[in-house]
Amino acid sequence: MAASRSSTPLLKDELDIVIPTIRNLDFLEMWRPFFQPYHLIIVQDGDPSKTIKVPDGFDYELYNRNDINKILGPKANCISFKDSACRCFGYMVSKKKYIFTIDDDCFVAKDPSGKEINALEQHIKNLLSPSTPFFFNTLYDPYCEGTDFVRGYPFSLREGVPTAVSHGLWLNIPDYDAPTQLVKPLERNTRYVDAVMTVPKGTLFPMCGMNLAFNRELIGPAMYFGLMGDGQPIGRYDDMWAGWCTKVICDHLGLGVKTGLPYIWHSKASNPFVNLKKEYKGIYWQEELIPFFQSVTLPKDCTTVQKCYVELSKQVKAKLGKVDDYFNKLADAMVTWIDAWDELNPSGSSGKLANGAAK
Amino acid sequence: MAASRSSTPLLKDELDIVIPTIRNLDFLEMWRPFFQPYHLIIVQDGDPSKTIKVPDGFDYELYNRNDINKILGPKANCISFKDSACRCFGYMVSKKKYIFTIDDDCFVAKDPSGKEINALEQHIKNLLSPSTPFFFNTLYDPYCEGTDFVRGYPFSLREGVPTAVSHGLWLNIPDYDAPTQLVKPLERNTRYVDAVMTVPKGTLFPMCGMNLAFNRELIGPAMYFGLMGDGQPIGRYDDMWAGWCTKVICDHLGLGVKTGLPYIWHSKASNPFVNLKKEYKGIYWQEELIPFFQSVTLPKDCTTVQKCYVELSKQVKAKLGKVDDYFNKLADAMVTWIDAWDELNPSGSSGKLANGAAK
Repeated sequence: MAASRSSTPLLKDELDIVIPTIRNLDFLEMWRPFFQPYHLIIVQDGDPSKTIKVPDGFDYELYNRNDINKILGPKANCISFKDSACRCFGYMVSKKKYIFTIDDDCFVAKDPSGKEINALEQHIKNLLSPSTPFFFNTLYDPYCEGTDFVRGYPFSLREGVPTAVSHGLWLNIPDYDAPTQLVKPLERNTRYVDAVMTVPKGTLFPMCGMNLAFNRELIGPAMYFGLMGDGQPIGRYDDMWAGWCTKVICDHLGLGVKTGLPYIWHSKASNPFVNLKKEYKGIYWQEELIPFFQSVTLPKDCTTVQKCYVELSKQVKAKLGKVDDYFNKLADAMVTWIDAWDELNPSGSSGKLANGAAK
Repeated sequence: MAASRSSTPLLKDELDIVIPTIRNLDFLEMWRPFFQPYHLIIVQDGDPSKTIKVPDGFDYELYNRNDINKILGPKANCISFKDSACRCFGYMVSKKKYIFTIDDDCFVAKDPSGKEINALEQHIKNLLSPSTPFFFNTLYDPYCEGTDFVRGYPFSLREGVPTAVSHGLWLNIPDYDAPTQLVKPLERNTRYVDAVMTVPKGTLFPMCGMNLAFNRELIGPAMYFGLMGDGQPIGRYDDMWAGWCTKVICDHLGLGVKTGLPYIWHSKASNPFVNLKKEYKGIYWQEELIPFFQSVTLPKDCTTVQKCYVELSKQVKAKLGKVDDYFNKLADAMVTWIDAWDELNPSGSSGKLANGAAK
């Protein structure tokens, strides 16, 4: 890819980095060579009176809870409090085409040759090349250098579809749930899998928000991280929720979702006991959520992400409301989120479908 | 996996290695440390008067065209002549539970540390551990050592399903079609992707027969390599056809298909001009075959591979017969293949469903 040899950072003026945090952002020092050219949107979680220090030289805007309340008014209730799910506020206020979001306990990983991985650059490559959701390519991403479509891959599908999401992975601490953390406290991910692939159409996956990039114009309004944390019966399902909603909408609109490279170095396992408390309802609700999302179909006239998302909220209320009243609240918040999104993005400049077509 | 540390080769008495060939099998010398404990079934392609030399010390049976004709009688017309598709005769005469098949231009590859890869052992590991076709695990095969299911993976799906197929990959010469070979004559696959994954339910993939293993009891009767080569209008689609049939039947019966590790070293690209002649009809027929296989549904009473396969042959005739008369012939040959299979495997000892259940 010619762009990787360029000295100007890719998409410098078209991408925002969104970081939810409760602490000083010292972790940015390690990312400086890769992130400094970009604009940061920092969403401060928890106590708004606390001052978050950002290392010198970074270009950023920072929003705390007071800012969110001021900007969104009563609609601010769709943004989670005391939970990193608040990051999605950053997606909403961005004016850029692309978003990269990363957790503040994620550091620069090294590839097997010892070279530091520019995670952002890899995400951008993933987003700028097509996806192949309709047929599996056994040599992985056919658009990577040194590879292609294999024998038996239909030629009519080789153009691919626009990529909406790039989901990156984690070396060191894997993204396990609390039960797995408790059972395997010492497990570390040391396997560097040198591949990017498209998650096939019709297949759901667990989308982790730690190291994630997406095309905001193509899929932004579906990237709602739900109601988590303070006052809510559940946590640690914010990114999963966003991932399931996003995937069914991408499948409907003919957009692609990639997973694999890049890796970041996930430094610290969160407390499994605390996690268990946040997760336990999710662990059993999930058994009903997955069949729900596997069977969702969206009508043909849902031709924009917003229309898809509002339709999805109705189905959530109709089908999941009986699982727990929480899903009625969540369905309402999904509608509020879309209202707030459209209010902050009035021109229709975001969320509209650039290349994909409803099918 | 404890078994990998064992000094007895895994499944020594339960697996046959099937090799189609037209030449002396010198390539086996390199595989001796890994293959010698196993029984080989050699299917001699082309002129039966030629003698194929097998290196000393290997335990094998060899079938040439005269043998095939003698054993199958008039049903021998379902076995391709002058094409490596004849290998499927070996699957039929095997009495073992597992099959590994490999081409005679495939050699032992090395992993990035320089260690020689025991491809057969990796296939066996793939076949003996479950598959996960209903939900995508972002850290790849969750049953590999050092990895697991990630957060958000439904617990009810973590048992997985029995694995029917293990599809391995190729370093050096990638498995490209003739047009891609012509356009990229110098491309070599040097990317070692350290992963095994399940091809999700509902997703088709291009199955290459060069480096392939399967559970004969679970899926054997679907592994028919079709009518190719001498007297046929098409070649190089034998394994693809088997893969598409196998995948829709695995999806129907709740069985898993894995792809990824192990790699073999594919030594020599076949002639792209010859390949183009063999492939060109396949290249355009394929555009109709893929939508056909994507929309195939099998009725509930198809509870064995044989029943599924015969039903599939009817749908091939009904829907693809109009694409070309070749598919009418192929549909008939599919039925002949099942008849021959059942004749050689009379006890119902193979092809019956051990663990999977029709769904």
